[in-house]
Parts: sequence; structure tokens; C-alpha cells
Amino acid sequence: MRVGLLTGGGDVPGLNAAIRAVVKRGVGEYGHHIVGFRNGWKGVVDGDVVPLDRTHIRNVLPVGGTLLGTARFHPHAADGGLDAVLTTIENEHIDALICIGGDGTLHAASKIAEAGVKIVAIPKTIDNDVWGTDSSIGFDTAVTIATDAIDRLHTTAESHNRVMIVEVMGRSAGWIAATAGIAGGAELVLAPEQPFDIERVVRFLKHRHRSHASFSIMVVAEGAVPAEGSAMDYEMQLGQFGQIVAGGISERLKVEIEERTGFDTRVAVLGHIQRGGTPTAQDRILGSRFGVAAIDAVTRGETAVMTAVRGENVELVPLSEIAGKVKHVPTDMLEVARALA
Amino acid sequence: MRVGLLTGGGDVPGLNAAIRAVVKRGVGEYGHHIVGFRNGWKGVVDGDVVPLDRTHIRNVLPVGGTLLGTARFHPHAADGGLDAVLTTIENEHIDALICIGGDGTLHAASKIAEAGVKIVAIPKTIDNDVWGTDSSIGFDTAVTIATDAIDRLHTTAESHNRVMIVEVMGRSAGWIAATAGIAGGAELVLAPEQPFDIERVVRFLKHRHRSHASFSIMVVAEGAVPAEGSAMDYEMQLGQFGQIVAGGISERLKVEIEERTGFDTRVAVLGHIQRGGTPTAQDRILGSRFGVAAIDAVTRGETAVMTAVRGENVELVPLSEIAGKVKHVPTDMLEVARALA
Amino acid sequence: MRVGLLTGGGDVPGLNAAIRAVVKRGVGEYGHHIVGFRNGWKGVVDGDVVPLDRTHIRNVLPVGGTLLGTARFHPHAADGGLDAVLTTIENEHIDALICIGGDGTLHAASKIAEAGVKIVAIPKTIDNDVWGTDSSIGFDTAVTIATDAIDRLHTTAESHNRVMIVEVMGRSAGWIAATAGIAGGAELVLAPEQPFDIERVVRFLKHRHRSHASFSIMVVAEGAVPAEGSAMDYEMQLGQFGQIVAGGISERLKVEIEERTGFDTRVAVLGHIQRGGTPTAQDRILGSRFGVAAIDAVTRGETAVMTAVRGENVELVPLSEIAGKVKHVPTDMLEVARALA
Amino acid sequence: MRVGLLTGGGDVPGLNAAIRAVVKRGVGEYGHHIVGFRNGWKGVVDGDVVPLDRTHIRNVLPVGGTLLGTARFHPHAADGGLDAVLTTIENEHIDALICIGGDGTLHAASKIAEAGVKIVAIPKTIDNDVWGTDSSIGFDTAVTIATDAIDRLHTTAESHNRVMIVEVMGRSAGWIAATAGIAGGAELVLAPEQPFDIERVVRFLKHRHRSHASFSIMVVAEGAVPAEGSAMDYEMQLGQFGQIVAGGISERLKVEIEERTGFDTRVAVLGHIQRGGTPTAQDRILGSRFGVAAIDAVTRGETAVMTAVRGENVELVPLSEIAGKVKHVPTDMLEVARALA
Repeated sequence: MRVGLLTGGGDVPGLNAAIRAVVKRGVGEYGHHIVGFRNGWKGVVDGDVVPLDRTHIRNVLPVGGTLLGTARFHPHAADGGLDAVLTTIENEHIDALICIGGDGTLHAASKIAEAGVKIVAIPKTIDNDVWGTDSSIGFDTAVTIATDAIDRLHTTAESHNRVMIVEVMGRSAGWIAATAGIAGGAELVLAPEQPFDIERVVRFLKHRHRSHASFSIMVVAEGAVPAEGSAMDYEMQLGQFGQIVAGGISERLKVEIEERTGFDTRVAVLGHIQRGGTPTAQDRILGSRFGVAAIDAVTRGETAVMTAVRGENVELVPLSEIAGKVKHVPTDMLEVARALA
Repeated sequence: MRVGLLTGGGDVPGLNAAIRAVVKRGVGEYGHHIVGFRNGWKGVVDGDVVPLDRTHIRNVLPVGGTLLGTARFHPHAADGGLDAVLTTIENEHIDALICIGGDGTLHAASKIAEAGVKIVAIPKTIDNDVWGTDSSIGFDTAVTIATDAIDRLHTTAESHNRVMIVEVMGRSAGWIAATAGIAGGAELVLAPEQPFDIERVVRFLKHRHRSHASFSIMVVAEGAVPAEGSAMDYEMQLGQFGQIVAGGISERLKVEIEERTGFDTRVAVLGHIQRGGTPTAQDRILGSRFGVAAIDAVTRGETAVMTAVRGENVELVPLSEIAGKVKHVPTDMLEVARALA
Repeated sequence: MRVGLLTGGGDVPGLNAAIRAVVKRGVGEYGHHIVGFRNGWKGVVDGDVVPLDRTHIRNVLPVGGTLLGTARFHPHAADGGLDAVLTTIENEHIDALICIGGDGTLHAASKIAEAGVKIVAIPKTIDNDVWGTDSSIGFDTAVTIATDAIDRLHTTAESHNRVMIVEVMGRSAGWIAATAGIAGGAELVLAPEQPFDIERVVRFLKHRHRSHASFSIMVVAEGAVPAEGSAMDYEMQLGQFGQIVAGGISERLKVEIEERTGFDTRVAVLGHIQRGGTPTAQDRILGSRFGVAAIDAVTRGETAVMTAVRGENVELVPLSEIAGKVKHVPTDMLEVARALA
Repeated sequence: MRVGLLTGGGDVPGLNAAIRAVVKRGVGEYGHHIVGFRNGWKGVVDGDVVPLDRTHIRNVLPVGGTLLGTARFHPHAADGGLDAVLTTIENEHIDALICIGGDGTLHAASKIAEAGVKIVAIPKTIDNDVWGTDSSIGFDTAVTIATDAIDRLHTTAESHNRVMIVEVMGRSAGWIAATAGIAGGAELVLAPEQPFDIERVVRFLKHRHRSHASFSIMVVAEGAVPAEGSAMDYEMQLGQFGQIVAGGISERLKVEIEERTGFDTRVAVLGHIQRGGTPTAQDRILGSRFGVAAIDAVTRGETAVMTAVRGENVELVPLSEIAGKVKHVPTDMLEVARALA
């Protein structure tokens, strides 16, 4: 059997564990031929193929990124993209495809499965918003990095009435913000799931600093937004800060908080630091288990499914079940974050 | 309401997160009085009580150990122990008890619940062998530490034909060995679940070194045992090494392997390093969620239950369901460890 | 003997190691009374005193920040500040003062020594720009954190022609930028010591991406400035971005680079994360050795000196020798950074 | 110019930084040809050569071990070894040699320099006992790992009257034991420089536990020895435990302490974990600076010298000055360790 493998979308720590598992199990247990496509779907479209064996996966477990390269490229969105995919798969005699990726890759996988290609997907995203699985590759590492940053801020309290903002990733879901906020003991978590009211934020900070605290740490998801009709929302419409992309929401919050409270406010933007470096043990285990489950599924002839972790088990979920869904942070998790602030 | 809180058994990273959550939520949300017992059940028996409020839980999230102290003491095993517990609970006007612990503490909790005391338990153990929950407090940190150790050994390969043994905790279950073995990419995992045959171990090492490898890493649970009737088992009966307690199985394996293969073999014994230090983000989140769930349960009047994580949810499990059961590493997890070696 | 102790200026990891050493050695070896002043010089001015013994320094070695608190307050700059200091020292019967701090604190120490108070200083600053000592408390931890951030960025290379900017601390000297740049293998280091020419930066990036690289990492000290008369300098005079304080230079560079190269550019601002959290082993050792040397010096009757590490030895340097001097990154260190880019 | 490069002796974190610096600077700045010898001096004897360019040193900064491989092989000790070295150097047209290693390698370098080969050495050893330099590559990482282990033990104090022994490397010098002992706040440090008296150790532990402490942490260098004529020394002569090599001294201490105090005693043996894994920022900077200095020296025609760090500077030291000397931990450092226990 000849199995194609690719990693799509933004890279995250733990991808190499999944690649390694597919190759070790595929070659060692089943005697399959495994070929990798470079740079995600782009490599499939371009026929950019590399055979994978044990020599390629040596020492990759602790290494972040992906040895196959990746790209933000969607074959179904590009002209003739799907056809090019099918052509490559035929030319390369690929019997089945394993693709590791986030929303975009999973969507592409659905389309390609519909066109008759056998395909099994593995979910990865530091945002943890893929529906149908408790966790995706990369999330645990991102939470660990963000927690470490909050820990560090907690020991540095050089001045009174200072507010520290840590901006973390999470465009449509606030998983990193909520969980790192709990783990790091942040005073305030702003997540996309609950649009914030700047006036309540300011009230909270003022009350806290008046009653007992000398400083506060806020964890802000990059996708946090002011509630419709609330104060900051109005100004947002004015577009006063519209041109600032990176550190956007944090920089705006800084200005608002300083103006409204007089508290010195500092910003740390973790940015891509969250998606790089050595994966945590959990992300390596998850990647390894997903890799084994995917090659096992492919060997059994399964298709149009995604590997998922549910409790202690790794299961397969039909791609059709997860299409178009975003897994938001449940309200009770946000409640824990709030209760422990 | 007046709630008593204790941590029993060996300490693990993440206990303080649970204590903090019980206090923050208990005091802040419900206005309960929370009192802590020092040094586990011993403190209950002795009436060694300390009131807990926000000042006690400041900055404890990243700190390992337990601010309440702990002890390996089982009230049901001590003469008059249970009676002393009931007396203290009456004297201190305790309405309900939250106890955080492993097998011993959970067993004590059952006994005390039977005597009519309202009690909610929170599972902790780095061995991860508590039945009924996907994970217990302390396990993720232990796996992380063990994985880091294996990583380090992987980059040091100064000599040919060297075998490195890392001994990890796990007396009756090999969770740390299996998961850290997967995460660290160990060549061989010996867990209590599958008694080993030294001759097969030696055959594997010889074959590996003859074919392509210059050295091998073995992860050995302290509770790993030779298969009945196999070579090492016989010698074990002779008790040749019986006097060595710490590093017992590893030191024995070292001698056996060196004798049978001639490969230079080195041992690292992680020991208590695995159960100390800053908890991982996961252990803090787990502790925090368990603490919130426990105080919520106690407030609702629940009793004789244990908090458990199942998939994405925290649930309550009757203590009666888990009594006397050990959660072993499932065969498919050991299979993943084997397949990826 | 009665010795006063204070920590001034911004806090850094390793201060507690120095405090612990002063107390352990002062009390245990010499039988001195050690009293701490809260919040730096402010506590001296206000007479905010706390006796220090072994119970206060338990478990503080791995904890960042300072158990005494600190403040950016300069007694010689405040009206009647010096007099208030002298009054407190008399009222509290202080025989000698040990002050741990950066430029501001060292300057204050000189003034107070001139007024006849026995004083020994210990240098701390993550910027490492205190003259007369190879290293100051806090620097090693900051470099470690910045290096870890660069490492993480190095494994995430999801897109072609992307530029990653990491902004680190260093207002008047680029020690963190240069050393973390070397340790992390950054492609470009911008330090205050060598004002940059944006056109050369852009030429370098374009050349690099054209010839072989898919992305570049720049480490930028917060105090990096465009060369006088160079392109960005002109715009700086226009004040176009003048209002942005945090992430100032990086945000400006981002805009410039994107405009001039078309490369997608992302910014990470480490901010106060660099000055918090568990100190490295080196910073604890340095703090411990400085603490011992300071209390030894004070006991011998020395005054107006600073502890300094020079090679393997800890020595004492007259405060008069270091006054007004800034230790810049030597050219050959910047050359190493450049050569290895 | 054609420069040969090798790494000899046990591997340590930071070797790759030095290799990378030699190659980057050698090729990029000077246009030299750099060739690597595999597995230390063995590769020179065998003529096992590999050309080194920029592709070989990509992403190696954070990776432990050595990309060239290493071996404990001394050409001057092997029959015809020196001749074989000279033959290879002539056959491969090597103009100068850079060798990175510890005592053995430095000794070999002297011999080969005497035979007329131009040679520059770079010191590496986690033991830090190379004379003539403040620090050697690998030491800082080892201290960091050992400190982390002590930190973890400090938070786990589940039982009263327990003694924790951490065995660290250091055969003839106790640098890791002393510095990690200071950084981690160990209660007792046993180093080869000061043979211990088990009766004093036991007295100290008993006194400590009687007065205030519930447990004690001892850091023991593998080369720690009982004082001549003292109790344990006598038993040592009996050879009762003579057969145990790994964990030798700790296992013996455990038995002695338990017998003499009744305190439960546990052992952790860090072993090779100390010499593997990601190098610290300091070790990468040291390796980078040494690499640059070595290739610069070689280019200038220097020979029979070793790179050394002294204070803030990297200098060259004649090999003749360091021959046969061991750099022991200075008494005042051991005194700091003792004073802060």
C-alpha cells in the first residue's frame, strides 16, 4: 500500500510526533510505502513528493514545526486545485492520504474524500477549536507557554497599580486564554466567546486595586472583542486604531485602561512564540496516538474520518460530523476562570 | 457552612491548585468557612486545624507540594482512628469534608462516608492508577519530568553499545513508563502490566545494536517484574540483590544486561524528582477544576463521591464504584509504545 | 550589629537569593540583627521596617521578585529624602546598610555613603549595564527567557518571506539582544550601541530571502535607534508613531519592513516576562555569592563599595569608580553576533 | 586554508554551538575549507572525514550532543596512534586542527602540537575542572539540570525525617555539587575536595531534624569520598559494597544514614541526564565565542593554545600552562555552600 502524508495550515509543536508514528507503524508494522508531500496541499498540487522512511524521523520527537513543511494553501479554493490533487494522487499511485491540519485542511479533506480519494485526517491547532475531539495537536504546548509567561509576570510587581496584559492566540475561540488564565491565576480573562464591556473591566480593576491588590494580570485572546454597543465598540467603529494589526486588541485595551484608570499598563504579545519549540509530553503522546490510529484506519480501508481523542480513547469521527463547526470554550470553563480570578 | 479540607498520601504537584480553588470558590462564591487539617488524616485525628482564607492561597498555583502538609496515615487502619475522626468533625462543627488523595485516602473516605460524614474526594496520584477518572492530579507533571529526562539521554550518545535505563515511578501500574516512553521515544518500556522476560529484552537489544543502533534507552517502572518462571525471576527468588531497595529493579537489570550482552549499561533513578516542583499547566487546570467541582458538590449536599475528568467534562463518581480497583495501562497504549520503539 | 537591607528599582529574578544569603550568613555566622526596609528607599524614608530571620527566607531561592518589595524611588531626588533616610537609620540604630539595586540605587548609595552612612551595594539589572562587574543579578535569567523565545520562533516557519521581530529589554545597552541573539541564532540584532540604518536592514533581509532563506528572526533591544540622518530617523522626527510607547521600535520596524520589502512581519514583545519567574541557577549563585560578600564586607567595616564578579572571584569595587558609567556591549561581542547570523 | 575539526571525550550540551561558530566564521569570513573528523580522535586515526558547510550546522544551536560524534579514544595511548594522526593530517592536507574536548583531548592536543601540527583547543567538560578557564562548555547546563532536580525535591516533603540524596557528576572536582547545592539550597554538599566524615554528616542531620527540619537534601558528587581513617572508609576497605559502580557512593550513604539515624533515605541518581539535552543560553554563548576565537586564532597562525574565558573576555592560554592541572572548587565557594545550607 502507498500512503501519502501531508501537514497543512500553520505549524504547531507535535506534528513531527504524528509523522513519525505514521512512518514507524506504516513501514514497520504494515510494510507500506509512505510518501510525504512538501508544504501541505501545495505539495500535492505541485507533485512535490518525498519518500519517507526511518532515517527521516530520527530524533524528531522533541522538535517543533514539521519536517514536511507546511503552507496555508487550500486546493478547493485555488483554480483547478482539486483536479491537480487528483492528478498527483493518480500519478503517484497513492492508495490513501493522511492529512494533518486545522479547519482549512479538514475542509479540503472532505472535498477530496467526496471526489473518491481515501483520506483520514488528524486534527492540529493551538486554538483547540476543532469540533469532535477533546484536544488537537499543539494546544497543550501553547497553553504551557502562555502559563509560563503569566507565572513570570506574577513574580514581577515592581510598581503599584500596574496592569499587565498578555495577548495570546485564539481568533474565534478563547481556549488558550481561558486555560492559561486558570493555570496562571490571571485576574481577568477576555475571550471571544464573551464580548467584554470595557466599563466593567475598568470597574473590576479599580475595585481590585482599591481593596487589596497592587497589580493585575489580564489574559486577552487576540480575538477578544468589545460587546456590541459598548464603549470601546463605538470607538472601534471610528477606526481610530484600525491600522494596528499585531497586538491590536491589547494595544487598544492599554490605551483605554490607562485613560480610564490612570494605572500604568504594560503589554506582552506572545505571538508565534506560542506555536514553536519543543512540544510538551502530552502533544507528543497525542500526535503519536493519532498517527498510529490514522495509519491503522487507512490500512483497514476507512475514509472520510478524523482521529479524535475522547476521554482515554482515540476514536474516529466522520468528517461530515465536524464540518463547519467551531468548538467554543464551554461556559463552565469560563466560569471556573472567573471564579478563581 | 463549614467545610474541612485535607491532602493525604504522598504529595504531588497540583495539590495547591485544588486547595486554592476550594478556598476561592468556597469563600468567595458561597461564603463558607473553610478549615484545613494539617498532614492529612493525621490532622483530623489530632484535631490539628487551621482556618483557610485568601491570604493562605496567594501565589500557590506554581508551587509544588501541599500547603496543608500531608502524611501517609490511614485512620481506618489505626486503633480508634475512625472514632477520632468523627470526634474532631463534631468538635470542629464540620458540615462536610473534602479530601484530596490517592488509593489510601479514597478508601478512608469510603469508610468515613459510611459512618455518616458528608465527604467528597479529589483523586491525586502520579501513578495515574485511580479508577474512574481519565487523569489524577500530579500525573501530567510526572510524565513531563520523565520525558524531559529521556530527551536529555537521547542527545548524549558518547559511546557505542551503551544501554541507558531510566527508572520511573509506578508500583502497580506503568502509566508514567508507557506515556513518557512514547513521548520520549524510548526503545523499550517495562511496565508492571506485562512482566518481562530478560531473555527477550536481551535479544531485542542485541538485535538492535547489531543492525543499526549505537545505543538504547529503556524506561522501567519501579514495579516492573520478570515473568514468572523466566530467568531473572529465578534469581530473584535467590534474593541475591534483595537488600537493595531504591533503584532495585534497574540495578538488577543493569547487572543482567551487562552480563548477557557486554553492553555498558547506565542507570538514572528519577525518584522523588518526579513528584516535586512546579506543576504543569494541565495539573493546575485539573486541580482547579476538581476543586471547584468538589466545593460545588459539597454545597449541593452530595456525598461519597469523587470528582473525575472524563473527556472534556468533570463529573462525580460514587466512591463505591471505584473501591478496590486499579486502573491499568490499556493494552493498546502499551502497543503504541511498542510500535513506536 | 544591626544591618539594614533593601532592594530598589525594578525587580529581577535572583534578588531573594541575595536577601537569603545576607540573612543566613548575617544571623547564622555573625549573630547580626538584620532588618529589611519595604519597597526600596521608600521604606527607608518612611521607616517601614521588618525584622528578618530564617523563617522569612524559607523556600525563596526559586522564587522571582523580592520578598522585601521594591519601588522606583530615589531619595536624593525627593525633597528632604536624604534627611529622612538619615533619620530612619538613626532611629532604627542601623550600623550599616546593604542595598541591592541598579543605577538609581547605586547612585543613591553613593550619596548616602557621602553623608557618613556605612553602605555596601549589590548590583542587579537585567540590562547588565552596571559598570565594574562582569554580571549583575537578573541578567542570566533574562537572556535565558529571550533565548527560549527565539528558539520557539525558529521552529515555526509556516510561511515564506516572513520576518519575526522579538523585542527585548535594554534601553541604553543591548546585552540581552546581543547575547540572546547569539544563543538563539538570530539573523539580525539591533542594539542601542550601533544605531541602525533601515536601508541596510532591508537590503540584508532581501538578500537573505532571495538567496536561500524562507524567513528571518530579528532581535531588537527596546532602546535600538535609527542612525542619525538615516531614513527612519527622519520619520521619527515627524513623530508619526510617537504616541506608541510599548512595542514602540518593533511596531515601527514592522511597518517599515513590510512597506519596503513586502515581507509579512510579525512582532513578539517579551516585556516584563523577561524580569519575572524562577531565577536561573547562575542568578541564584550570583545572588548568593553577592549576599555573602556584602555581609562579610559590612562586618569588616567596609563602606561605599559594590560587590562585583570578575572572572571566578567576587570582589569589592569602590562606588566612586562606577559612578555615571554605563557598561556597553563590547564591539567584539556584537561582532560575534554578526558573524554567526 | 583547510581546517580540521573534532570533538573528543564525553559529549556535552553546547558542542554544536562551537562547531557552528567554527564553520560559519571559517567559511563565511575567511573562506576556509572546514572538514570534520567523526568520533573524535578515532576519526582522525581512521581518516573518517566529512566536509562541513552551512547546511550541516542549520538548527543545531539548541541541540545537545555533537553532530560530529565523539569517542573516548586517546591517540597517544594507542599503538601507532600519533603516527596515524600525522598521516591523516598529511593525506587530508589539513593546515590546522581545532579540537574540542576535556582533559584527555587537551593532553592529546599537546602531544600532537609537539609533533609539529598547528592546533587550537576548546575546553568542554560538565565537571568544570579544566584549568585556565573560568568555565568550560557543558558546565552551565549540568548545573541547571541538577538545580532543577533539587528544586523539585524541595517541594516534596511528604514524610518526616526523610533524607534525600541527589548524586551528581564530578569525579575529581565537585563543581556541579557545590554550585547546584548553592543554587538549589541543599542542606549538605559532599564534594571530592573535602573528604567527609560520616559521623559528622549524621550528627548534622540528627541535629537539624531534632531542632526544626522535617527533611534534608544532600547533594553528593559521584567522586565524594570518606575521609581517610573515618568510619565509612574502614568499611570501604572491606569492600562490602565494592561491586556496585553506578550510584555507588549514594547507595552506600543511604545504607549508612538509615542505619545510624533511622531516617528514611531516598536516592536520585541523575547520571547522564546531566550531560544531555538543550544547552543553556550560557553554554551556547560560550561555545559560540570559543568557536569564533579558535578559528580566528588558527587563521592568525597560533598553535598549542586553548581558548579560555576569563571574566568578560575570551583569551588564549598555552596548552603547556594547563597540562596536568585540575581546577578544584575554591574553598570559599565550598564555604558559601556551607554557610547557606
